[in-house]
Parts: sequence; C-alpha cells; structure tokens
Amino acid sequence: MTHAADTLEALATALPPESLVTDPPAMDAYRWDRARDPNAGVPLAVVRASSTAEVQQAIRIAGAAGIPVVPRGAGSGLSGGSSAVAGGIVLSLDRMRSIEIDPATRTATAEPGALNAEVKAAAAAHGLWYPPDPSSFEFCSIGGNVATNAGGLCCVKYGVTTDYVLGMTVVLADGSAVTLGGPRLKDVAGLSLTKLFVGSEGTLGVITEVTLRLIPAQEARTTLVAAFPALASATAAVLGITAEMRPAMLEFMDQETIGAVEDETRMGLDRDAAAMLVVQCDEPGEHAARLIERVAEICTAAGASECFATSDPEEGEAFAVARRIAIPAVERRGTLLLEDVGVPLPRLGDLVSGISDISARRDVPIAVVAHAGDGNTHPLIVTDPGDPAQCARADLAFGEVMDLAIRLGGTITGEHGVGRMKQPWLADYLGPDVMELNRRVKRALDPAGILNPGAVYG
Amino acid sequence: MTHAADTLEALATALPPESLVTDPPAMDAYRWDRARDPNAGVPLAVVRASSTAEVQQAIRIAGAAGIPVVPRGAGSGLSGGSSAVAGGIVLSLDRMRSIEIDPATRTATAEPGALNAEVKAAAAAHGLWYPPDPSSFEFCSIGGNVATNAGGLCCVKYGVTTDYVLGMTVVLADGSAVTLGGPRLKDVAGLSLTKLFVGSEGTLGVITEVTLRLIPAQEARTTLVAAFPALASATAAVLGITAEMRPAMLEFMDQETIGAVEDETRMGLDRDAAAMLVVQCDEPGEHAARLIERVAEICTAAGASECFATSDPEEGEAFAVARRIAIPAVERRGTLLLEDVGVPLPRLGDLVSGISDISARRDVPIAVVAHAGDGNTHPLIVTDPGDPAQCARADLAFGEVMDLAIRLGGTITGEHGVGRMKQPWLADYLGPDVMELNRRVKRALDPAGILNPGAVYG
Repeated sequence: MTHAADTLEALATALPPESLVTDPPAMDAYRWDRARDPNAGVPLAVVRASSTAEVQQAIRIAGAAGIPVVPRGAGSGLSGGSSAVAGGIVLSLDRMRSIEIDPATRTATAEPGALNAEVKAAAAAHGLWYPPDPSSFEFCSIGGNVATNAGGLCCVKYGVTTDYVLGMTVVLADGSAVTLGGPRLKDVAGLSLTKLFVGSEGTLGVITEVTLRLIPAQEARTTLVAAFPALASATAAVLGITAEMRPAMLEFMDQETIGAVEDETRMGLDRDAAAMLVVQCDEPGEHAARLIERVAEICTAAGASECFATSDPEEGEAFAVARRIAIPAVERRGTLLLEDVGVPLPRLGDLVSGISDISARRDVPIAVVAHAGDGNTHPLIVTDPGDPAQCARADLAFGEVMDLAIRLGGTITGEHGVGRMKQPWLADYLGPDVMELNRRVKRALDPAGILNPGAVYG
Repeated sequence: MTHAADTLEALATALPPESLVTDPPAMDAYRWDRARDPNAGVPLAVVRASSTAEVQQAIRIAGAAGIPVVPRGAGSGLSGGSSAVAGGIVLSLDRMRSIEIDPATRTATAEPGALNAEVKAAAAAHGLWYPPDPSSFEFCSIGGNVATNAGGLCCVKYGVTTDYVLGMTVVLADGSAVTLGGPRLKDVAGLSLTKLFVGSEGTLGVITEVTLRLIPAQEARTTLVAAFPALASATAAVLGITAEMRPAMLEFMDQETIGAVEDETRMGLDRDAAAMLVVQCDEPGEHAARLIERVAEICTAAGASECFATSDPEEGEAFAVARRIAIPAVERRGTLLLEDVGVPLPRLGDLVSGISDISARRDVPIAVVAHAGDGNTHPLIVTDPGDPAQCARADLAFGEVMDLAIRLGGTITGEHGVGRMKQPWLADYLGPDVMELNRRVKRALDPAGILNPGAVYG
C-alpha cells in the first residue's frame, strides 16, 4: 500500500488537481470502453492529461513505479483496448482537444481527444474534408482512431485512418516525446515509424498530437438502397459492384439489423428482406447518378427485390444514418458481443452464411452489419445477461465467428483493433512467427511492458 | 581467406549454379545502383535467388559467417541503397519476377524482381490499375518500389507505394520467412508490420513477395502544359491549383531541365521559359477538361506566358514522357548528384529559389524537376568528372540542398530513400531521439546488423 501511496503522491505533486482523478466512483467513468470488458480492473488513478508534458509526467511516474498505463480517448473502443488494469494508471486524453487547420498545407493538427466529427467540422470550415468515418464519428476521438487505425463507411473508396496520418507526437515508454513525420506529403527518410504507431493500440507509445492529411470536400452523392430476398443475392451484388467500380460507400445490413434499425427510425425499411445494401457514388456532376443506375442494374441482376435511388442529399444521408446507428439499434435488443471480422471479398458470401449457421447452431441471435465493399463485417451477437446458459453459448459463438474468418483467409479484426476481447485469437490468426515479430517490436519500444499490458500481445 | 572460401563453398553447396555469381567481372553488374556510389565495395558473391527458399539459404549462410547482405531489385535505385558492401553478399531478386492478378480480390501478387511496368501491364489486362508510377517505372522493380516506398507522378492524387501494399512475404535476418497481411482490404490484427517493412530499404528483411491493391482503370486524362517567365509564378500556380483541387499529375520543370528535355525530344518546348508545369486531370467525362480549364485560369492569373491543353491521349502522354525522361536527359549533360528533397507545399517557392541561389553560389548547374503537387523536388546537380574542383563544389551543394530543405521544414528524401548517399544527413533531419528510435527497431529485427549495413542508420 505504501508503494501505491507513494505513486499517488508523486502524481499529485507532478500534476495539477484537475488532471488527477482518484475518487473510485469518479474513476468508474474511465474503467471501460464500449466493449464493457467484464475483467476491467480498478485503477490506482486516472490522469486526465492536458498536455504532452503531463502525459510524460504520468508515464515517467508509472515507469518508476512499474505500474501499467492504459491510454484512452473517448472510450468508444469496441474491443476492450482501454479496459482499466487493476492498480495501474488510466491515461485519458479526453481534455486534449485542440484542432488547427492549415489550408495551405491542407493538413489538420489535432490533439488526440478531439472527436472525429470535430476534426471533420474544422476541416469543412475551410472547404476541406477528413474522410475516415467510423460509424461512431460523432463520439469517437481522433486519437483512438489513430490508435486502432479506424475505418468507416467511406473507406471503400477513400482508405482508412493510416492513409491520412502524416505525422504525430508520441510519448514513449521511457517518458520521452518524439515527433514523427509532419506536414510533408511524401517522406521516406528513415523507417515508417508513423505508420507503425498507427494501429498500435496504445502499446508502443501515447500519441499526443497528430498531423492529418485533408482533401477537397466530397462531391454530392447519389444513394441507392437495394433490398434482397436472400443473403447470397446481396453478397453476389457486392462482388458485381466492386468488380467494376469503386463506390464511395457499400454497406450491408441483414434482416436482424434491418428490423432493429426500423424499430429505431420507422423510416419504412423492408423488414422482410434478408439483406439490404446502401450504396453511394460521388463522381462529379451527373456521373454519380449514372453509376448508381449501373449499381441498380447489378443489384437487380443479382436478385434484388427492390431498388430505390436518390440524389437528394438529405434523403441519402438518412439511409447512411440508418446504417450508422445499426450497432446502437441492435444494442437495444440485448448486451452485444461485437465482432469485426473481415475476409477477402470473394469469401464474403461464405462468411455471412457461415455466421448464420453459427447463430442457428448456438441458438443466439447474430445481427450482421458490414462494410461490404471492404469485406469487413460486424456480426453483433445479442446476449441476455439474465440467461447465463445463453451467454455461455454466445461466448462460444464469439470465438467460432473468428475461427470461421481465419478459415476463410480473413482477419479477426478489420478496424476495431484486437484490444483485450480478441487477444486470445490473435496468435491463431497471425501464427507464432508473426506473433513473435510483434512481440520483438513491442519489447524494443516498451521493454518493461508498462504500456497497455494485456492488450494485443497477451 | 579461409573464412571467405568456406562461405563460398556453403553458398555453392546450398544453391544451384545459376543462382550464384562469383566471377568478379560478372559481379560488377550488381555492385552499383543508379547513384553510382563511388564507395561501392567488391562483394564476395552475388546470389541471384530464384525463390524465397534460396533467399533464406543465402541469409542463413551470411548470418553464420557474419557477413553483410545487400538486397537489390533492378538496380535502379537513386540513393545508393544497393551499393555492394566489400566481402558481403549481394542478394539480387532480379530473377524472381512472377506476377499473378486476382480480379476477384482486385489484387496483384508479385515477386520483387517484377518490374513496375510489368505489374501495371498485368493489371491492365484485367481492366485494373496499379497506380504508383516512378518515372523509372519501365525499368524499376516492384520490390525496390516497396523497399523505398516509391512515389511517382500520379501520387499527388493516388498516393504512394505503401498505400497499395496489402501484404508481403519477408525473409528476416535469422533466415525465417514470415507472411504479413494479405488480400484483405482492412486488417488491424497486430502491429502494422507490413507498413513498417515498406520503406525499410532492405535493412529489416528481404521481401520475396508482395500483395498489391489494384483499382479500376484510370479515366481518360486531359493535360495542360503551362510555361512561366519566372520560377515564383510557377510555384504560385502550384499552390493555387492544390488549394482547390487534386489533379492526377502536377509536375514542374525548370529552365535547365526544359532545355535538356528539348534536346532529347525536339518537341518544341519553350527553352526561354523559367519553368513549366505539366498538369493532368482524370475526372469522368467532360469534367477533366472543365477542371483543366480552371487550371489554365489559375496558371494565367499566376503569370503563365502560355497554356496549352489537350484531351488527346497521345499528345498528353507525350508531355508526361517529356517529364519522365528529365533525369536521363539531364544526365547527358554530366554526372548527376541526385536530390529528392521535399517541403510542405507553401515552402515550395522558397525551396526552388534557394536551390537556385546554391547553384549560383557554388557555380554548379542544378536542374530542378519536381512532383510539385507533393512538394517533392529532384534537384539534379550536374558535375563534370574531369573537373575535380567543380565536383568538390557540387558535393558541398549536395549537402546544402538538404540543409536548406531541413531549414524549410522539409525532408531530405521524399521517395528515393536514404540509402548510403543521404545517410550522413539523416540524423540532422530526424534528430537524435528519432534516429535512436529507428536504431532500436533495427536492432530488434536484425541484432547482428547483417542486412544492408551502411544504409539508412550509418
């Protein structure tokens, strides 16, 4: 206890009072992310850093005490990457939210706690666009996006977070701060360390500032919604579309998801459809509408029962919103075990039908929503916490979905990260050699293992 | 000598005769890349591997003997990244050239010795496109492109090599081979090791296969050529263009370069112009031509003396070719010291005028050609090997150009890599902390330092 007391005293001495939370009920707000990891511990303290220097102080004190540091942004993570570790420090970046836009270099410089939506809005004020758009963009932090290499809906055409990260300031495990990259569009001087830190889930360092590439504002979009009587027809349409074009959005919802979203929105979605696709094209002028006509042809040929196209921006956005609220909508039906499996595109149909089999065999509802154009699906396993037997079956299904993805040549996580919830499956996916290569890099950068232990490497 | 003889015997035992070159004159073809590093050594042997297994054999034998391995693709590198090291093994991948296209996953799987142009052609046969296009695309290897994270002309809109690398097989310093990533468009399971190996210049491992993302074929392009009476007008036009759009090509040539290219092509370029821009747009239908009209307006407002636009594909391609042959064209005027400095876009004018000052002060011709839309320039210092005093001045200018770029917030290399020629400047650019971070990753992956010693880290 003396040891813990010494550490708390060191934190209180080094940090202003508003940067330190040690009251247990107040700390509860920082113990979990959206994965609600049942194994999250009670931390010794929460540091709500206001600057790179305070992050350095917290990490140095943690290093001296040999206790873990769990970085977190907005706490919207879906894989338990920021579950608190018992006796450690939760290092929250939620107060570091400044954003600066430089229209001349077409870059944004943001602190990690800034929300994705805030970065988008700041860019838009200059006629610019930060494309990556996780469904949670209104409440997820840019630091968390970088830490997980977050994806989203427009990524099928515009790429994922790493494609937009030009540089960062990162505090290393020894408390030193380094600046990697910067507002240079091309830079190959030295190893691609910026890219290494993107997606490292807080295990190699704590990002305290990022420089992001912006592009000109997106053109007006035309939207198509297509309903399918069978899963296989919908996945066949996805392949037909990607075979000849790059839409700006290509999303999938299965029947369970459609029903949950319709419960929320009452917008008249077809509850009887086995699956629905939402497709957007953003070519200039009439070309978007022309491409959407072609998408409708492909969907019809694949067996769509209905296609509805609109160039009205509000109407189109309403369908995008319907897709984005899928996870919270399904969450109303029970506690979710969230998956994020992805496969090479031609295996999408096998993945979706295999998940349906698992759902039937384990007798648990699994709603599937997907960034279909990337082969990246989010099977949402719905559990009833009051039914322990069903929860046990859901846990089995959770692993079986990842096993299925691996068998189909896919990944256990396309955009949410490994965190703690998928950690037990990582070695199965990567194999022992690549797992060891991950650990070698981790040991080189964090030899004492204080940064986010338990996440990613196990 | 016994030690060397033992190593040669081990190589001869492990490899088929066609994979081993030990005859000194024959080895000469593998001692230099296009940087013609004067310090290139005489290797013990050249291994022309035909498979991942042969690469593993060569690396294991080198590791056991404690001798260096210098990987090389087509030998078209511009920074001495594949200069042979005395007594080491040159590991040439020039015989490993297979390419497979999978239209279903829209990926190419290529061996490292395949030329960039061959990958492009194989993709085009399926109506697909591999965008990255170094000017040397007809004679540079895809493995070298990945090792240096090569750029090119279309990168201003379509990104650089790393944006297209989905996976790879890489042989590590201990001779083990691992597969990273694969034909999955999104994958965040574990560290971004694929991205770490891209741009690592053969210092972390030897890439023996890459999986590349392909996109649908590019739309027809409209091309604008604009001549400017002053450097500052041309760089102002660049900023004006990038402020409102993303052209598919935005290239710059100064007067020295225009003259050298005109000597080669006799296509009627304006030798009196201080600078020329070549711009291409590729929006669908009439939108490319419409955007090019806007580019012409911007150029005229910035002071262009002449603008010529064409939607004729052959005519447009002729101007792109003129730009691509700039380096060989200038090379006819003397031996080149090739620079690759890049700056944040608003500093492009300062960089170009500063280079002009260095040229005047050191009394050496410096031709400047640039991927202007990325802020990435190639000052070509023209030297006369028969004039040692001028060569000494050129060496000073070579360093001064990099010092200038660093002062302007720029990088010493945007797309060619550090290699050996720019190694002495890397620490000045990165600073001691980031340099040490590079070395920590290097030591973790190649503790004995056998992979491409002398390159990058010093």
